[in-house]
Amino acid sequence: MSTSDRPARRPLFLVLEGIDGSGKTTQQQLLADWLRDQGESVTCCRDPGDTPLGQQLREILLHSAGDLHPMSEALLFLAARAELIRQVIRPARERGDWVVCDRFLLSTVVYQGHAAAERIDPNWLWSVGREAAFGLMPDLILLLDLPLEVAIQRSRRQDRFEARGREFQERVRRGFLIEADRQPERIRIVDAEGGPDEVQRRIRDEVERVLERHPRA
Amino acid sequence: MSTSDRPARRPLFLVLEGIDGSGKTTQQQLLADWLRDQGESVTCCRDPGDTPLGQQLREILLHSAGDLHPMSEALLFLAARAELIRQVIRPARERGDWVVCDRFLLSTVVYQGHAAAERIDPNWLWSVGREAAFGLMPDLILLLDLPLEVAIQRSRRQDRFEARGREFQERVRRGFLIEADRQPERIRIVDAEGGPDEVQRRIRDEVERVLERHPRA
Repeated sequence: MSTSDRPARRPLFLVLEGIDGSGKTTQQQLLADWLRDQGESVTCCRDPGDTPLGQQLREILLHSAGDLHPMSEALLFLAARAELIRQVIRPARERGDWVVCDRFLLSTVVYQGHAAAERIDPNWLWSVGREAAFGLMPDLILLLDLPLEVAIQRSRRQDRFEARGREFQERVRRGFLIEADRQPERIRIVDAEGGPDEVQRRIRDEVERVLERHPRA
Repeated sequence: MSTSDRPARRPLFLVLEGIDGSGKTTQQQLLADWLRDQGESVTCCRDPGDTPLGQQLREILLHSAGDLHPMSEALLFLAARAELIRQVIRPARERGDWVVCDRFLLSTVVYQGHAAAERIDPNWLWSVGREAAFGLMPDLILLLDLPLEVAIQRSRRQDRFEARGREFQERVRRGFLIEADRQPERIRIVDAEGGPDEVQRRIRDEVERVLERHPRA
């Protein structure tokens, strides 16, 4: 009866974004489960990662601990993303898979364009990042938003981004919200407080909303 | 009597470019010797390289043997260059050093924009590459040009670029010449056939030419 049981057959390219501890990994898995339960093929990936270059750059980026300029960081993320698209996302799309990706270009815009001490122009990052992604942009970006305190309690990882401290993470959260405000259709703010199932319900509502409005590609 | 004995005191940012085997390394050393003999401070560097990130990316780039898309390669070169500028070239310039760099942005434009099978728009590479270089462009690019046969005889290295074969190297040479034709003042074609001293004499003539025309910055 309702579309909540059966999304139309247009596979979407979905991205989960948010600060560390916002629940992206958990929600990615729940979202993929939901889609697969309905017979959809789903490719999950994370950016950076999931290619040989992505893994190498992920190591460099997570362990350079403030040694790199945000420009260099941004370019490395763009390079990893180009390979992720070429080797994983585009083939998945061509097979007719849904794609659910943990982070994408918006993270580069926010971390290097809003939160870094020496900020790179966010508009420049969008423009270059889109070219570097061969023009492939997500259908929907789900921004998992929650207060920093809650995220810190949830998070157990201590990589360089978390090591940058509370003020940096506040700038990240604010950057995400600014960008969502600029692209309210493509970037949907999802309240990420509450239990995993509750948050997942909000995510599914957003996905269904897109499917209802554009049932066929 | 002539300026050939004593360049004016304006330190220049010089770049040596050319296909593998064109003699860049030898000429870089000879050029630095000449400048130092006249009391100038000189910083020699190579791109990519000479920073921790540059070394890591150099390894990735030289050993990925065709696995990477030219877009990803270009972005990695840009990232390595941003760090090279920040950590080596800009500090050298601020000290008043001459800088003599083995390759720079033109190599990215030529290899990924002209020679690669899936070419990236050279104009886009110039534009993004200039931003990624924080706007710092060389005063003079010395393009060491010579026939492929001569370069092959001279070259002993067998990294991925050389492994790409003769046709690729011809496209590289042609790409360099096209770009030199578009920027005849900034990119000077130097005949790289003949003995090292003979080629060096031609390089010094070009450097003096710039100094005579712009004796003070």
